[in-house]
Amino acid sequence: MNGAQALLETLIDAGIEVCFANPGTSEMHLVTAIGKTDAVRPVLCLFEGVVSGAADGYARMSGKPAITLLHLGPGYSNSMANLHNARRAHSPLVNIVGDHATWHHKYNAPLTSDVPGHARLHSHWTRVSDSSEDLALAGAEAVCASLEGAGKIATLIVPANHAWEAAARSYDRLEPPTLPAVTKDVIDHVVEAIGNGKRTAFVLGGAALRDTSLKSAGRIAAATGATLLSETFPARLQRGAGLVTVQRIPYFAEQAIQFLKPFEQMVLVGAEQPVAFFAYPGVASVLANENCEFVRLAGVDDNISEALSVIADLIDAPTCPVVQEGRQSDLPEGELTPSAVGDIVAGLLPESAIVVDEGITCSLELFNRTHAAAAHDWLAITGGSIGFGLPVAFGASIACPSRKVISLQADGSAMYTLQALWSMAREECDVIVVLLNNRSYAILNVELARLKAGDPTPKTLSMLDLSNPEIDWVSIAQGMQVSATRATTIGEFYTQFSSAMKMTGPCLIEVMVQQHFDAIVRR
Amino acid sequence: MNGAQALLETLIDAGIEVCFANPGTSEMHLVTAIGKTDAVRPVLCLFEGVVSGAADGYARMSGKPAITLLHLGPGYSNSMANLHNARRAHSPLVNIVGDHATWHHKYNAPLTSDVPGHARLHSHWTRVSDSSEDLALAGAEAVCASLEGAGKIATLIVPANHAWEAAARSYDRLEPPTLPAVTKDVIDHVVEAIGNGKRTAFVLGGAALRDTSLKSAGRIAAATGATLLSETFPARLQRGAGLVTVQRIPYFAEQAIQFLKPFEQMVLVGAEQPVAFFAYPGVASVLANENCEFVRLAGVDDNISEALSVIADLIDAPTCPVVQEGRQSDLPEGELTPSAVGDIVAGLLPESAIVVDEGITCSLELFNRTHAAAAHDWLAITGGSIGFGLPVAFGASIACPSRKVISLQADGSAMYTLQALWSMAREECDVIVVLLNNRSYAILNVELARLKAGDPTPKTLSMLDLSNPEIDWVSIAQGMQVSATRATTIGEFYTQFSSAMKMTGPCLIEVMVQQHFDAIVRR
Repeated sequence: MNGAQALLETLIDAGIEVCFANPGTSEMHLVTAIGKTDAVRPVLCLFEGVVSGAADGYARMSGKPAITLLHLGPGYSNSMANLHNARRAHSPLVNIVGDHATWHHKYNAPLTSDVPGHARLHSHWTRVSDSSEDLALAGAEAVCASLEGAGKIATLIVPANHAWEAAARSYDRLEPPTLPAVTKDVIDHVVEAIGNGKRTAFVLGGAALRDTSLKSAGRIAAATGATLLSETFPARLQRGAGLVTVQRIPYFAEQAIQFLKPFEQMVLVGAEQPVAFFAYPGVASVLANENCEFVRLAGVDDNISEALSVIADLIDAPTCPVVQEGRQSDLPEGELTPSAVGDIVAGLLPESAIVVDEGITCSLELFNRTHAAAAHDWLAITGGSIGFGLPVAFGASIACPSRKVISLQADGSAMYTLQALWSMAREECDVIVVLLNNRSYAILNVELARLKAGDPTPKTLSMLDLSNPEIDWVSIAQGMQVSATRATTIGEFYTQFSSAMKMTGPCLIEVMVQQHFDAIVRR
Repeated sequence: MNGAQALLETLIDAGIEVCFANPGTSEMHLVTAIGKTDAVRPVLCLFEGVVSGAADGYARMSGKPAITLLHLGPGYSNSMANLHNARRAHSPLVNIVGDHATWHHKYNAPLTSDVPGHARLHSHWTRVSDSSEDLALAGAEAVCASLEGAGKIATLIVPANHAWEAAARSYDRLEPPTLPAVTKDVIDHVVEAIGNGKRTAFVLGGAALRDTSLKSAGRIAAATGATLLSETFPARLQRGAGLVTVQRIPYFAEQAIQFLKPFEQMVLVGAEQPVAFFAYPGVASVLANENCEFVRLAGVDDNISEALSVIADLIDAPTCPVVQEGRQSDLPEGELTPSAVGDIVAGLLPESAIVVDEGITCSLELFNRTHAAAAHDWLAITGGSIGFGLPVAFGASIACPSRKVISLQADGSAMYTLQALWSMAREECDVIVVLLNNRSYAILNVELARLKAGDPTPKTLSMLDLSNPEIDWVSIAQGMQVSATRATTIGEFYTQFSSAMKMTGPCLIEVMVQQHFDAIVRR
């Protein structure tokens, strides 16, 4: 047995089932070991940003870590943008990064890089194995570390010689950590606060946005009149017909400030106090009313579900909360706007669909129009790092192969990690990519106005414009063997989306979307 | 005047002409300022790995820095893989990274990231501006820092409020640093060494591989019988008919060890002692004969050209070195192998072409077959970080718009930064992409054998295979409005390549290449 084999056996024993990989020479002994077992599914991605995004999507839907296989500093750095999102999503994730053999470092060969320095930027836990014999224990510790609280990023750096040198044994699964319970003092404090007559909002994040927690939160809301809010970019929000509805805090700071003004008190449950995504000249960073009081019930790493349930029982809340009624919208008329796309998606969404939203300027309308669709999961861009959508949709589909995944994807952000399309085709994932093509970095046009940077010249605007040349997403998707069509009218999109719903396997619909920006920012 | 305008005026005064950009909200005041001047050409890229690779290609060909425009930690991290290559290429480069407004940091908004921590991984010089008034001086210092020695990476981090707050003035150009001369003692020592009768090789890197230096090195070789070697992956090697020829140290360690065995002495000129790219079980990391003596003439940051010229004069070397004769190869016959592609490229290459080589397993044959082509520049993957080719070809073309750029590009590595195709189309670059499609991570198949990791299973091999599904590069290129054709025979490639030579503007030829791996590694 070599170090790579001992590590892999340990990981399997700890429950690892999937490896998203973009391997290089330093990882060949791990690739070889994976090739010899049926217990781990290797999933090849053609860019490391797809690897990390897929592992994030997998973790959000399965609640457990996949491993990634990455190649030295440069391979790791390509994964970092989506690790940033995964960290903000509190996704459990175990990175295995190959490095040069220990004795080779001092020669400063071309790929020599400070791998631990890279890893520490996003990892809660980073470890370089000491020897081939150490690798297995390090692997067991990595999985445990990834399961701390809601989920953490653990990175194990494996010098190539540790993978190929002899190792005596693998390690048994270590006892995974449990979620800390919220203390009775905190619960009593929150119960007192929600009875104080102030206008109260619960700001929900993390596990508070999953079905069980939402039920308890809905019971509390029914008993107290509190408003339920979701953080703006939830890792995984369960919503739709039959579920307790929450209101999403708006993205644009000016809108959010207006929206949050009435609340005198906020109970934080797996979320932090709402703050602006960016700072703007003359706009506050803190979005809540300046007199608002904050009460923390639970951090994202606490046992949120239990805390909410205990409170609902303590205050004798009604056992059945108000839930969203299902409602079918009529087929929209007029232009193929984001709202029209949202209406059509809402009408055709099957029960238990997974929606991955990187619609950027289209997102608000898509979200608003789908609140009464069949029950589904909504996965958002937690860290604001562009290029999250296609990889996360891919990983979610690997975690839940029997569920339809809808990737609502803006064109500009799709370009960052478009290699995910190839992996979707390879793994025959049941993903429909709704590619919202507005031929623009539209969000930046909006932000430019909000920043009061002065009147833009045509040259300035050209730097935010994707129409020169026009990107043909049908052709790109077909180039990666994903079947693709283009919709320029409501009728075309309806026909294409409904026929995609009747099939399985990946496809892409390029939607030539009509946007009216005054509808995006009303100021 | 705001900070962004003051910074931009300073950069223009320091000679900056090009900005490769993938901007976000934090950079909008800089984008606005660039939109108001004719002195800087903004070049939009749709992924930050294209930005940094393009800036590297631009620097290799122009010898001066471009600025990049990057967005917080995640934007910077996407640029890191090609910054790794740029650093190893000793390219001057000035990164401008927008960050949150100073007061916004403490709120931990989604994109909050340790930008200086990211930057320090690759930058020789990193600075966060102190205020809007400080930005201009910081910009002048950044350009100066980038021009130290052969070239350095300088990163200036700009909190958004510094860009939009008032600034009184820009700064004058600071005196750029000069190259340190090699001391007389060192020169005398080298002169003595090359007269000692030992079998000697000059290991050339950096500026030693440019025309003027090569002439001096050729004179020394003619006088002393020394062999001229190039580092394996040169940033920019001038070669072909009429130029002094150097032999490239082989990539594969076993081959390099054989090749270097005869040399008793090596003179290092802008290069380090040759070491293996990776470590392998039972193979040495140091490639030279264990009895070989090393003499350092000049580091990469020294005045290499002067040092070589002084030595050539001191030893009364002949004034005309032996140069490569031009030779036309016949049109090859048989399969469309890398050698055949190389022969055709060699025959049709125009004077002063720029060849960017990320051919990976095809590279050796392509390089060997083109040594007698018309004089050209050869740009290689200095840091081994995959995805360098298309962006560097793009940036080289921006630097030298009147020269034909040939991008020799393997399929697997092309996928990492394929967004460069769109920018080539947008800027109407005169680039021919020869996309060498072997439908495989072929190099990893070779490395797998060399690592003696045991017999691979079909599952192992599937992780190195790009044929399921097959990538259609013609379709992908056309999707980004780059005209494209596919060649499956020698005749087709000849026809397509020669007709591409007669046109200007970007095009891609997908070459369905036939490879025979026993020819890659002879062991």
